[in-house]
Amino acid sequence: MSSSPLHPAHGAVRQITRDGELDTVAVEEPLEIRVDGDPVAVTMRTPGHDGELALGFLYGEGLIGEPRNVSLTEDFAANTVVVTGPLLRELDSRRFYTTSSCGVCGKGAIEEISVQGPAAQPGWRGAALSRSLLAGLPDHLIQPGFARTGGLHATGLFDSGLNLLCVREDVGRHNAMDKVVGWALQHGLLPLIDSVLCVSGRLSFELVQKAAMAGAPVLVGVGAPTSLAVDLAAERGLTLCGFARGERINVYTGAERIKKS
Amino acid sequence: MSSSPLHPAHGAVRQITRDGELDTVAVEEPLEIRVDGDPVAVTMRTPGHDGELALGFLYGEGLIGEPRNVSLTEDFAANTVVVTGPLLRELDSRRFYTTSSCGVCGKGAIEEISVQGPAAQPGWRGAALSRSLLAGLPDHLIQPGFARTGGLHATGLFDSGLNLLCVREDVGRHNAMDKVVGWALQHGLLPLIDSVLCVSGRLSFELVQKAAMAGAPVLVGVGAPTSLAVDLAAERGLTLCGFARGERINVYTGAERIKKS
Repeated sequence: MSSSPLHPAHGAVRQITRDGELDTVAVEEPLEIRVDGDPVAVTMRTPGHDGELALGFLYGEGLIGEPRNVSLTEDFAANTVVVTGPLLRELDSRRFYTTSSCGVCGKGAIEEISVQGPAAQPGWRGAALSRSLLAGLPDHLIQPGFARTGGLHATGLFDSGLNLLCVREDVGRHNAMDKVVGWALQHGLLPLIDSVLCVSGRLSFELVQKAAMAGAPVLVGVGAPTSLAVDLAAERGLTLCGFARGERINVYTGAERIKKS
Repeated sequence: MSSSPLHPAHGAVRQITRDGELDTVAVEEPLEIRVDGDPVAVTMRTPGHDGELALGFLYGEGLIGEPRNVSLTEDFAANTVVVTGPLLRELDSRRFYTTSSCGVCGKGAIEEISVQGPAAQPGWRGAALSRSLLAGLPDHLIQPGFARTGGLHATGLFDSGLNLLCVREDVGRHNAMDKVVGWALQHGLLPLIDSVLCVSGRLSFELVQKAAMAGAPVLVGVGAPTSLAVDLAAERGLTLCGFARGERINVYTGAERIKKS
């Protein structure tokens, strides 16, 4: 399995016949994430970078930290990833079964929504960010799968100079984020100090939570934020920007990291 | 709580301060769905029509049928809906805890993805549908919340003459669908024979599954379908249309219900 940071995975799109002609759609298939022998979650994802997805998901749930002692087995044919290694907290099987891959829904009780793991405090040691450069960030997301299908979300990780380090596409926006976080984990880049995450769609609570768990100080989206996304970003000290569309961008929280002019 | 089929709920949007000026965002808050005393799922939803959401969710999971013997208690302040009544199948607590509100993710194993309930066979007894009228269907979705925030999905239910019967908005596209199905349940309209469902976004497996469980013969979306959405629609006999944008529409499955010309 390729883990190229800037190239799409094989198997992300599929040809179908529509009105007697060939068309291309984004592939959606279930992935079962297992920890040791136990299935802990199933997510509908676009195949490829499954190991990153599993690692990013488990990191976002506060279950794994350093990847040193964690081993991965990807079974592409069976749509399964098995993660083996010591966990940061014990798996209460009943509770963990309730955890969904989208980070929120599927949880059995409201108290379970906020991940209990130690969230890294977002850090930004670079110069103040240019508003216009942030507004243009989505143009730098490489989205070959979206270009062919119109059916994939993307998340990109940028360094403090706004250079693209890694981009991932997926039918689930939470999966695209998990894959990028998993890639960063494997490359020793967590927590994401001095980094910017950029997503191709809307900004929900779950995405802010995943960004905060990864220690990202800045999260930019092409779409609208929800009320809870704004609240959580304010609480965690993230800079949250929405409606990033070329020339314009809205800054909802953490404006101190953005240049005044 | 208003249950008007064509009007938004109170509390769906909230004013915030951004750059010193007032702005409006879509509200996202957790809703806990309980069956009798047991919490079975939490979904991040836009408040309002919570009872419909709970009923539609449980119907889509094959847990309830006729609403006759089902009672609802909505606790708006506590973000909780309690459903009481006989279920069509037993709640295996551990398994049911794994069920997520988005219909798929959060399930503990791949086998659990397909809902085991008896899916109604989609029926269409009306005249063949006009391609151009279907292409224009999204224009008839009433979306006041989206107009103010850019952050809400919508699902609309149309009759065989393509008149809008009910529309619901939500930060979660699966919730908007659940709310419409719940409304139809309360009004004795299930299964949705001779009806068309229209969604404002992309077409995933979960949305096709919910439409199929509700017995809808036709599902139209503004966005792209996934591979599994096309596969499931073909298997269940649904007419699945995507990229419905005014003049154009793509028909992926069930073209026999669409006029040739």
